[in-house]
Order: sequence, then structure tokens, then C-alpha cells
Amino acid sequence: MSLLDLSRQVALGIDIGGTNTKFGLVNHRGDILAKGSIKTDEYEKVEDFIESLYQNIEPLIKTYSPHKNLDGIGVGAPNANYYRGTIEQAPNLRWKGVVPFAELMIQRFGVPCKMTNDANAAALGEMMFGAARGMRDFIMITLGTGVGSGIIAGGSLIYGHDGFAGELGHTIVKPGGRKHWSTGSEGSLEAYASATGISITARKFRAEFPDSMLNEYPEDEINSKTVYECAIKEDPTAIEVFRYTGQKLGEALANFVMFSSPEAILLFGGVIKAGDFLLKPTKLHMERNLLPIFRGKVKLVFSELDEADAAILGASALVWENNNK
Amino acid sequence: MSLLDLSRQVALGIDIGGTNTKFGLVNHRGDILAKGSIKTDEYEKVEDFIESLYQNIEPLIKTYSPHKNLDGIGVGAPNANYYRGTIEQAPNLRWKGVVPFAELMIQRFGVPCKMTNDANAAALGEMMFGAARGMRDFIMITLGTGVGSGIIAGGSLIYGHDGFAGELGHTIVKPGGRKHWSTGSEGSLEAYASATGISITARKFRAEFPDSMLNEYPEDEINSKTVYECAIKEDPTAIEVFRYTGQKLGEALANFVMFSSPEAILLFGGVIKAGDFLLKPTKLHMERNLLPIFRGKVKLVFSELDEADAAILGASALVWENNNK
Repeated sequence: MSLLDLSRQVALGIDIGGTNTKFGLVNHRGDILAKGSIKTDEYEKVEDFIESLYQNIEPLIKTYSPHKNLDGIGVGAPNANYYRGTIEQAPNLRWKGVVPFAELMIQRFGVPCKMTNDANAAALGEMMFGAARGMRDFIMITLGTGVGSGIIAGGSLIYGHDGFAGELGHTIVKPGGRKHWSTGSEGSLEAYASATGISITARKFRAEFPDSMLNEYPEDEINSKTVYECAIKEDPTAIEVFRYTGQKLGEALANFVMFSSPEAILLFGGVIKAGDFLLKPTKLHMERNLLPIFRGKVKLVFSELDEADAAILGASALVWENNNK
Repeated sequence: MSLLDLSRQVALGIDIGGTNTKFGLVNHRGDILAKGSIKTDEYEKVEDFIESLYQNIEPLIKTYSPHKNLDGIGVGAPNANYYRGTIEQAPNLRWKGVVPFAELMIQRFGVPCKMTNDANAAALGEMMFGAARGMRDFIMITLGTGVGSGIIAGGSLIYGHDGFAGELGHTIVKPGGRKHWSTGSEGSLEAYASATGISITARKFRAEFPDSMLNEYPEDEINSKTVYECAIKEDPTAIEVFRYTGQKLGEALANFVMFSSPEAILLFGGVIKAGDFLLKPTKLHMERNLLPIFRGKVKLVFSELDEADAAILGASALVWENNNK
């Protein structure tokens, strides 16, 4: 294939969330040529959802793809299985059981379709178009409502024997610790370092410190955003919420480093808006828990991709990943 | 290359330990054609050590290799770096600093030489000749004086960006827990699940239970072997030592499973002689700490390789790994 042809290839990247599904046409350089979205939760049947995607995307292909076609489709979705092309038992989607999503997409669109979970897609996106360009070993941690992860080792995503590798948010950082609201496990990383976990920590700490500014907010407004607002006003309790979160995250990251020895750990998602309030204690406790041979070597950085586009770019990267094999 | 030629290839596998160095000529089927050993700690200079290896091995090659030559050398050694072919700051070897071991071997033997740490070599050996034949995703845990590990993902060893990946013995399983006698870290897997860790646990537990049979042994005879002897005589304290060790190991394994989702975890080394006393609680606590999608899927098995030969076979597998790339 000539360089000219490569530059005219177009992939469709789709990011399926519980509420919204975003999609975009992406070229090999990572330019988003066109994008759009539909409501995920409006469709009781997955077939209707796919038909709606097709009706929305077909005109974009005709207008924006240089060859008026697609080279492939990449999908990031919760509980997506890379090997089987399925979405399995996704708690926040209406389609229950094991959904043969990739097969249905191939039938409707007539091109190859690959899928993986959203954090894996984000990791691929960072490797092709973001802060991890040129890296062969790194770990992506997404800190949002939950904590997700994508692990690249030797230039490839780790999928594991069943396609479900990389559930680092559910690793236990404090045995017998905080009970997870959904899985029931005790002391998982997600229970502390997700937006949900930070809210729980903040509610606990403000009850212990009546002087804290955090007590000026109603219960349902205590979240990582309001904790940040108090932290920049130098409220010691709010700062302590991020320090505590960073300690748990840093301890977990040290264990991850001793597993796959990555060149960098990329942090992504709403929680990283806390900036240095979170990053500094995270780095401190990561370094403190590492063996000397790993210390001072691992870059701990924030994602470079625009959050709104990252999921689409990451999903589209699944198409190029396969073409390059 | 014809099948006939392949069957006549011979690799030299070398396992360097602090006291003894074992070596063997190995064919592509994993048959050890000849073997021997020299004392590691007799040689102050690495050059003299290599010369002694050569003088011992040269006659074996002449006698046992069908083509009277070697196709390559694989070396398993503490703190060996795969990318650089070096042994770096190995605490239990006399050669200090960064030793360009592979280069010196190539100069003397005139064939390619690859090296990695001993646990990685053992993992390769299991994949080529042992319990992990045909597996593309598994984790090898060596439970000896220390706790080592080798991680295979997608059919390849994970080396990490610097060649030091897979230090799972030093991951923290209990933050703020038992202080490690050498690294100083608190609550690492090695502090509990190594032979050394088991001795510490046994000394602690027997002090708490004066009735235990463990109190019939002098202090310096308390080790995983004597604890096993008491356990088979149904001493509850000895059984509790393995149960406690298995809990810590199982909790750690659950975290490893959620990282790379292996088909199996292979346990290897002196400590596994404890058999079901250790294996049952390990499996229980691994399963208990897994997300439901991982439960009941991961085989937890003992190594199939003879311990005396495993290190040689594993090191020789480095040669075939490279030939197959």
C-alpha cells in the first residue's frame, strides 16, 4: 500500500457509554473528519441502535471519506470482549446477556469491526495519537466515575487469555478496607481513587473536621469538583482528601510498575482536574513503595488527548492496530 | 531449516546462583543431553568464572552435540537484564556493579548469548517443556528463599521498558505490614510467602501457642520443611502457618489475575512441598478477591518440571525463543 493510500484511509471510531454514544470518522493521522452522537439508552433493542448509528453515519461517510468508504470500525464499550466481539453483562446498558455486537455491525456496515473496553481503547489512542506516541510499555489509568485501565506491554495491549485483562480498578489496595458500593469487594483501588470514592472520603473527612469549608456544601454536592474548589482556597481538609486519595493511588501504581515495568503511567479522566493536589502525593507514594531499581524512572503524566475526542480516537485506533499486524 | 536439522540443534542452558552454577546441553525437545556444575562463589573475577565454564563445557559439546557445536547460550541469573545482556548490582554474587556477562560469553564461546532473571527463565521453560505448554497467557511464581515471577502475556515474556518487569515478590500485599529483612519495604508478598517469610510466621505463631509441636524444634530449625512435618501430624498452629501464608499469597494472586488475566498461575520452588496445606487457602483467597468475571477460570497448578533441571531448561529456552522470532 502506498503512503498516499494510507493517508486516505478512514476508520469509524465509536464510544458507547450508558447514556450517550459518540462516533467519529478518523484518518490515519488522528484527525477527526466528522463526528456525532446518539442516545444509547433510547434503544431497547441493539438492532435498532445499530440501525440508528448506520442512518447517522452513512451520510458522513459519503461526504467526508476521500474514497466514500470505511476501512474498518473500532468500538470502545463497557464489558466489551476483544476476542469474541461481544458486550457481556454490561450493568449500565439496556441490552442484557452476551450481545454479538461486532457481528451485527459487520452485517450492517459491511466492513471489519473490532471492539474492546473503553480504557483499552483510550490506551491505544494515547499510543497512536497522544502522550504515549513511540512508547512500547505504558499503563493508562482512567479516573472517572470508576477506575479503568489499559496496559500496553511490548507495543501491544494485554488482553489476557479471555479478553478481560486490565481491571486494575478492582485490585485490592487495602485488604479489609472500604467496601465497594457495587462489587462488594473490600479495599479496591476504585473504592478510593474514583470520583465516587473521592466523594465518600470527602464526606467522611468533613464530618471529622467541622471547621472544613466542605461543610458549607449540601451532601449531594460533595464531589471531586467541590473538593477541588475548597482545596484551591487552601482548606486543609479538602487538601487532605486528595493527599489520602493520592496515597492509595500511588501505592497501587507501585505494584503495577513492579508487574510490567512501564516507561510511563498516563492518568486520564475527570478526577485529574485536581492537578498537583492529587499528582504530588500519588508520585510520592508510588516512589516510596518501589524497589530501588524502579525508582525515578517511571513518568507519571496526564493524558494529552482532548477528553471529548479521546474515546473516539482510541476506538478508531483498533482499526489501525489490526491493519498493522 | 528442515525438521531434521531442528532436531539436531543444541542450546546451552546456564543457571547462575549465588553458590552454584548449573549448566546443561539441551535439544529442541527439552532433553538434557549432558549436564554439570561449578561453584559460583569460587571466582572473584567474572572472566575466570567464564573460562572455567568454557573448560567444563567444551568437552561436553564435542561428545554430546550431534553437530559438535552450539546454536546458542541462554543464561538465567539474578538481576540479569534481557535488553542489555548484563548482570546488575546482584546482591548475592561477588561480581559488583554492571557486568557485561553476555558479551563476555559471546567472546569466549563464539555463539549468541541471551540472558534474563531466573524466574523469567523458569516461565519460558514451563511454556516450552512443562505445565504451560500451549498457553499464551500465564504467570509463574517461584516460592523459594525469595519470591520471583515471570509473566507471559500473548505468548511473550513481559520484560518492561527497562528489562526488569515481573518483580511480583516485591508488590505490597499488606500496606504497613511486615518489614522486609533486605529491601526495608513493609508488607511485600516476599515477606510472607517466601521460605524466609514462612519461618518468620512460624516463629511468631509458635510463641503465641505454647502447645504447638513447633516448640519442640530449636529456633534455627523452624522452616517450611519442619512446619510441614508438624502440619501432617495435624498440629493446628503449623496448619495455620500455611493457611495464613496462603491467604496472603491468594490475595496477591487475585490482584495479578486482574492485571493480565492469565489462563493459569504456576507455582514453583521449595515452598510448594507444603502441597494442599498451602494450595487450598491460596485458591480460596484468590477466588474470594476476584471480580466475578474472573472467578473459577484461572488454573492454579504446581510446576511439572523437575526442580533440578527446570532452571537449565528454562535458560536454554531463551535460545529457542529468539530463533522462533
